[in-house]
Amino acid sequence: MNYKMIKYTLGWLLVFEAIFLTVPAITALVYKELAGLAFVATMLACLAVGILGIFRRPKDTALYSKDGFVVVALSWIVISLFGALPFVISGVTSSYIDALFETVSGFTTTGASIFSEVESLPKCVIMWRSFTHWVGGMGILVFAMAFLPLGGAHNINLMRAESTGPAVSKLVPRVRKTAIILYSLYIALTAVQLVVLLIAKMSFFDAINTAFSTAGTGGFGFRNDSMASFSPAIQIIVTVFMLIFSVNFNSYYLVLKVKFKDAFNTELRVFLFVVITAITVITIDVVHAGIFETIGESIRHVAFSVASIISTTGFATADFNLWPGFSKTVIVLIMFIGGCAGSTAGGIKVSRIVILFKGMMRELGQIIHPKQVKKITLDDRPVEHEVVRSVNAYIVCFLMLFVASIMLLSVNEYDLVTNFTAVTATINNIGPGLEAVGPTANFGHFDVFSKLILTFDMLAGRLELFPMLILFSPKTWKKC
Amino acid sequence: MNYKMIKYTLGWLLVFEAIFLTVPAITALVYKELAGLAFVATMLACLAVGILGIFRRPKDTALYSKDGFVVVALSWIVISLFGALPFVISGVTSSYIDALFETVSGFTTTGASIFSEVESLPKCVIMWRSFTHWVGGMGILVFAMAFLPLGGAHNINLMRAESTGPAVSKLVPRVRKTAIILYSLYIALTAVQLVVLLIAKMSFFDAINTAFSTAGTGGFGFRNDSMASFSPAIQIIVTVFMLIFSVNFNSYYLVLKVKFKDAFNTELRVFLFVVITAITVITIDVVHAGIFETIGESIRHVAFSVASIISTTGFATADFNLWPGFSKTVIVLIMFIGGCAGSTAGGIKVSRIVILFKGMMRELGQIIHPKQVKKITLDDRPVEHEVVRSVNAYIVCFLMLFVASIMLLSVNEYDLVTNFTAVTATINNIGPGLEAVGPTANFGHFDVFSKLILTFDMLAGRLELFPMLILFSPKTWKKC
Repeated sequence: MNYKMIKYTLGWLLVFEAIFLTVPAITALVYKELAGLAFVATMLACLAVGILGIFRRPKDTALYSKDGFVVVALSWIVISLFGALPFVISGVTSSYIDALFETVSGFTTTGASIFSEVESLPKCVIMWRSFTHWVGGMGILVFAMAFLPLGGAHNINLMRAESTGPAVSKLVPRVRKTAIILYSLYIALTAVQLVVLLIAKMSFFDAINTAFSTAGTGGFGFRNDSMASFSPAIQIIVTVFMLIFSVNFNSYYLVLKVKFKDAFNTELRVFLFVVITAITVITIDVVHAGIFETIGESIRHVAFSVASIISTTGFATADFNLWPGFSKTVIVLIMFIGGCAGSTAGGIKVSRIVILFKGMMRELGQIIHPKQVKKITLDDRPVEHEVVRSVNAYIVCFLMLFVASIMLLSVNEYDLVTNFTAVTATINNIGPGLEAVGPTANFGHFDVFSKLILTFDMLAGRLELFPMLILFSPKTWKKC
Repeated sequence: MNYKMIKYTLGWLLVFEAIFLTVPAITALVYKELAGLAFVATMLACLAVGILGIFRRPKDTALYSKDGFVVVALSWIVISLFGALPFVISGVTSSYIDALFETVSGFTTTGASIFSEVESLPKCVIMWRSFTHWVGGMGILVFAMAFLPLGGAHNINLMRAESTGPAVSKLVPRVRKTAIILYSLYIALTAVQLVVLLIAKMSFFDAINTAFSTAGTGGFGFRNDSMASFSPAIQIIVTVFMLIFSVNFNSYYLVLKVKFKDAFNTELRVFLFVVITAITVITIDVVHAGIFETIGESIRHVAFSVASIISTTGFATADFNLWPGFSKTVIVLIMFIGGCAGSTAGGIKVSRIVILFKGMMRELGQIIHPKQVKKITLDDRPVEHEVVRSVNAYIVCFLMLFVASIMLLSVNEYDLVTNFTAVTATINNIGPGLEAVGPTANFGHFDVFSKLILTFDMLAGRLELFPMLILFSPKTWKKC
């Protein structure tokens, strides 16, 4: 284990966090809020500790597979631990555990909140919550790699551990340049959304918060009714951008390179198919049950909810907890699917589900034609054996963590649906679930133990399980 | 596809079913019940159709991989279609769909009933319900193989498709002899339970029904309160035998061969560990909640419930739907585990879960030590790559069928927990679930569409998915 390099990387991340904290600090300055001092104090703390870490650049900058996973897991924990401080210092909550839950929920782009009332929060706090979504969406280490010469060799391992989906694909041979391209696309798309929202007459503060939150597919609301009281035009814009940020960023790069066929790959096609099917069947169910007054209104709310859930954003314009059973079931199912690999969305990811499905079909094919040996292919390219194996291990990991979390949560005496969907909503980084954690509810009422479990699930979900498990595996820390 | 051999095998199975039907017919004779005529009529129907099938023995008796799966799937469907007739002819139900649900529930050893009142059923009907459990438990084709020279080559494919667990293991080189050994052990253990129950002063009729039902890990009750009104001694005997029939029958054979170490293998140790842990934690929870009057009583009911659920029998002495949330959650979790491979129990099977867990650990190990290549081992023997792959495909299959069933069921407007546990209880061949399908409830209130879905799930679960999927796959029927 390259401890020196781990310390060095963590140091730089804290320096970056200090820079991130200028965003809420400036907000406080603009709105003349005293709470801004909490961010300045946290900035100083981050800088003080961070500079200790970056004091001396290690000679050996290589981070091997295991180190990469450990660095990523530790980074996310450390920036969350520091990022939670402003909530406590500013006095918006008295519980550090609640503050940590909120911060992890922010960075992991979950959007599950412990606040029942958000409109009375200082604007700088609201800005920090939205900005954590934006920072966490594309990845903190990807950011560091883009803007920091973290050292050459093996930093693909950092990207592998932090980016979403079954296999990391470099857009260009150099990892650093890939990171720069990804962040440029991310910034550009966020800016486009901001402009479109401003054109739709959203206030600047609301628009920038919405853009940060949508880009990271986070979902922290800044109004108590989330997105319900905004105009239909704004709701439709948010619907479209939630879906845009659920698509693999590689596709946008390929579009810029005029490789349309490669951009519109299997994963994207399956994703759009699922979205359209879900919107169609739920609209039929909701119209049949007479939930909304017109069909147009039904389509708008259903499309918003489906986009919000499958992109794992978690914004709401309607309380789907009150919809009929079939609609609720479909919503719970798409909670697990999530967006495409290489997007800011959470969930299991469409490409993993495609690979699992193809693996199953191959197995059935093998029974029918035992002598035929077939490889799994995706977009006419064979899927490497290691990727298939890793996807299978991922699903098992996911199920085990899921089951263990529900079991640990069930000592809290909530109903099964609440516990089940609370774990679903955190491990998939969505935000709202059903019943006591439905779209109109929040997570503040859970006990400390449950909050810690759900905090772990959010981190494990965002980092796609392996980094957190590697960090807590005794084998990792054994000398060999 | 060897159509002639498929027809021939199905013919013989109907002849066997005619022989099975003598059991309820004799019961009717003893108790002088008119309903017995329904069984005689069905016997004649089975014989008439069966003899048409066995009229000419095909020259080519080989059943290849695909044929084996198709024969097994068709066999179970055909004997269920005929086995349902007595329920309608005797008039205990007017709906053939209900009768089919009950029969499939019997043969698949699920034990989910459409009857709300069983004590008023004719004794011959009760006997038929219990006897279907016994026949289905060890397998109908395994029975046919033991007692019928079905032809030599490739009938391992039949056994592979029908027996439970990730890989079939022949006890002795010859398939037929393996089948004979398995059925001998099965008959002997059933007889031992019958004798022990008689010693505990159960009436002969009750004892034989209980023994049939426990041996197949079925769970059809013949009293409205299932096993609640029997003496503690009888409840304890049933607890022990439910666990005995959840163990791989190979273990009993190995005990007879004085190979104790091989008998007490990893799967058995993990199974016992899960059973003991589940009993312990639920007892603590139930005692803490003050559900029963004494600790002794708590342990007895919890042990019975855990054994009943993990063995997928489904008998009840207490209504666990009224237990605290944590206990209910643990019960739902062990519903998925089920018994050991090669037992009469349902569920995913302990060995599959062990293989999945080891696969996950190998993947994590690979990240920590990328250059180490490790094979998954079980009891110091490497698990073949094909088995690991098949187990992974099984889990994906299971999840997809599970999700699709819940979605299709959710149009019925029951609550999520009812639908979720109804699918859980049928696909794992358990019987009771929670809420509207709890231990004191039944499945009669579902609509026809839901009953057909659950009937399919019972068959798919008992045959471990692949045969039913192969049967309904268009590829199977393509000429190649």
